[in-house]
Amino acid sequence: MATKAYGANAADKPLEALDIERRAVGPHDVAIDIAYCGVCHSDLHQVRSEWDGTLYPCVPGHEIVGHVTAVGDHVSAFKVGDTVGVGCMVDSCQGCASCDEGLEQYCENGFVGTYNGKTDDAPGHTLGGYSQNIVVKDKFVLKISHPADQLAAVAPLLCAGITTWSPLRHWKVGPGQKVGIVGIGGLGHMGIKLAHAMGAKVVAFTTSESKRQDALDLGADEVVVSRNAEEMQAHANSFDFILNTVAASHNLDAFTTLLKRDGTLTLVGVPEHAHPSPNVGALIFKRRSIAGSLIGGIAETQEMLDFCAEKGIVADIEMIRIQDIEDAYARMQKSDVKYRFVIDNATLAA
Amino acid sequence: MATKAYGANAADKPLEALDIERRAVGPHDVAIDIAYCGVCHSDLHQVRSEWDGTLYPCVPGHEIVGHVTAVGDHVSAFKVGDTVGVGCMVDSCQGCASCDEGLEQYCENGFVGTYNGKTDDAPGHTLGGYSQNIVVKDKFVLKISHPADQLAAVAPLLCAGITTWSPLRHWKVGPGQKVGIVGIGGLGHMGIKLAHAMGAKVVAFTTSESKRQDALDLGADEVVVSRNAEEMQAHANSFDFILNTVAASHNLDAFTTLLKRDGTLTLVGVPEHAHPSPNVGALIFKRRSIAGSLIGGIAETQEMLDFCAEKGIVADIEMIRIQDIEDAYARMQKSDVKYRFVIDNATLAA
Repeated sequence: MATKAYGANAADKPLEALDIERRAVGPHDVAIDIAYCGVCHSDLHQVRSEWDGTLYPCVPGHEIVGHVTAVGDHVSAFKVGDTVGVGCMVDSCQGCASCDEGLEQYCENGFVGTYNGKTDDAPGHTLGGYSQNIVVKDKFVLKISHPADQLAAVAPLLCAGITTWSPLRHWKVGPGQKVGIVGIGGLGHMGIKLAHAMGAKVVAFTTSESKRQDALDLGADEVVVSRNAEEMQAHANSFDFILNTVAASHNLDAFTTLLKRDGTLTLVGVPEHAHPSPNVGALIFKRRSIAGSLIGGIAETQEMLDFCAEKGIVADIEMIRIQDIEDAYARMQKSDVKYRFVIDNATLAA
Repeated sequence: MATKAYGANAADKPLEALDIERRAVGPHDVAIDIAYCGVCHSDLHQVRSEWDGTLYPCVPGHEIVGHVTAVGDHVSAFKVGDTVGVGCMVDSCQGCASCDEGLEQYCENGFVGTYNGKTDDAPGHTLGGYSQNIVVKDKFVLKISHPADQLAAVAPLLCAGITTWSPLRHWKVGPGQKVGIVGIGGLGHMGIKLAHAMGAKVVAFTTSESKRQDALDLGADEVVVSRNAEEMQAHANSFDFILNTVAASHNLDAFTTLLKRDGTLTLVGVPEHAHPSPNVGALIFKRRSIAGSLIGGIAETQEMLDFCAEKGIVADIEMIRIQDIEDAYARMQKSDVKYRFVIDNATLAA
């Protein structure tokens, strides 16, 4: 199936219109007409080859929302016309301990990414959601029950949403708890919304005084400008859990010391340059932990989407035409977006 | 009560015989004739002022075993003649959330250390177990039910034992699990014995080929020389829990990468120089944690002592006279001890 897409042919080339092929719909496949695709920072890292192993042509995009146009003979969970989503994964081994537990993101044999993943389909690696349509194994397709007019804003839930949901759920965030969200960007703004909806008291941390009101509007009960030592000190030893969405190298001790005994600081971004080495005493004297968390499994992604539909939660987005993707990347690098760009995939036909 | 002790009057002075005073036995106090006192690396750090805030005269020692010689009017749990122990703490606020949970080591107001802690007793700071006797509040006194001929070897359980027991219990080590113990010294040798007795498969990590047989003799199922990359690699992604007893600065990634998904690497030593900054990707891609843990609470120390008495577990020790304490320190700094020096406190009378 010939498909219009947008991608790059080399790390130093801008994204441009590409013609790609999607595989024929197999017995377990779902063909999806893509309506919207969120723009994740990972897209930029991969397409510019800032991460190892980028294969070209590279078509990014793993925050996909669209409608089913065909299903394979053995597909019972989806039918033509359904509103569906695809996130960061399109396959996994389905046989290891992690897959068995529905945690495909930790597949012992490595999950297949929605782009740049290994596949038998041409050209030998997966091509993502900056495209008109995609064919995905049914087990990796999510049901979306939000109203039709919210679909563009649902797209970022597929990566930014689940990446914050999974650790908040895993570390059992809920009522009566005080939870910190570090960074108010694509991930952080979802973290604030989700932790608030889970019933926790939410404190947002930002380096920018200018984001204070924004964070309150997103649902934070309190905002702390992390450069202000006095403001930080007032929260010492008080957090049950802190989700740190900032990948740039920074001093983690500033946050570990805000945790109560047995609290956890969970990181979801890999820094390009290592963080300063965390103070071990700050861990030992309060039995604190520093942990990491990666996106989320398919079952928990569905749980998150259903929760968000019920609570009316979507991302705050700015819609763009695919032709403006390079401008969007440039603005994203300056954190000049509230809080996620989403591509209107109809513009691929232009 | 005049008491013979051993301690230092300054950071650059050797330990020497001192005459100290113990307070009169108050209504909640237990007076203890000290039979044995283990020699912990912390003793050396404190008495040499390698840690901040050492107060002189400094009498170290917090692995104390002895017999009750008097009890206060309100003490019901102990009577004259009982065999008892005292560990790293002799008091805490008894009013905070941590004290309420029996985790006095994390007392929000700071526990009172057995030495160098704040007290109203002369000389204004606590003096430890390198002495003939000690007076301790009943809540911080432990019952010892080991046979009389094992008492010297019980002493190290009060710090080395509980420091390894507490994290092994907190992270729920037990049958069916694969557990690593890093370092085969005073703490590590107890970690091996305890994790083995808890029913886990125990792998000991050492930098010395020469300790391989020793670790097996202590109860390790397998020993890995951590300098051997191939041996390490064979254990990648396989541990439920790793207890790291090595305080010297070293590469933590070598151990985090051996953890399974959701595994925890727990540190019990504060390094003098920071460890190299841990790789965040190694945490994120398997939802691993790096945590810290500090000694243990009074209730869990009692639980550990009872468990060890039932299972016949004691430390491996080398008995010394108090007059040989400086030699013992020198050997301890070279890790030349299997695995804990214990002072025969009767030699204080010499």
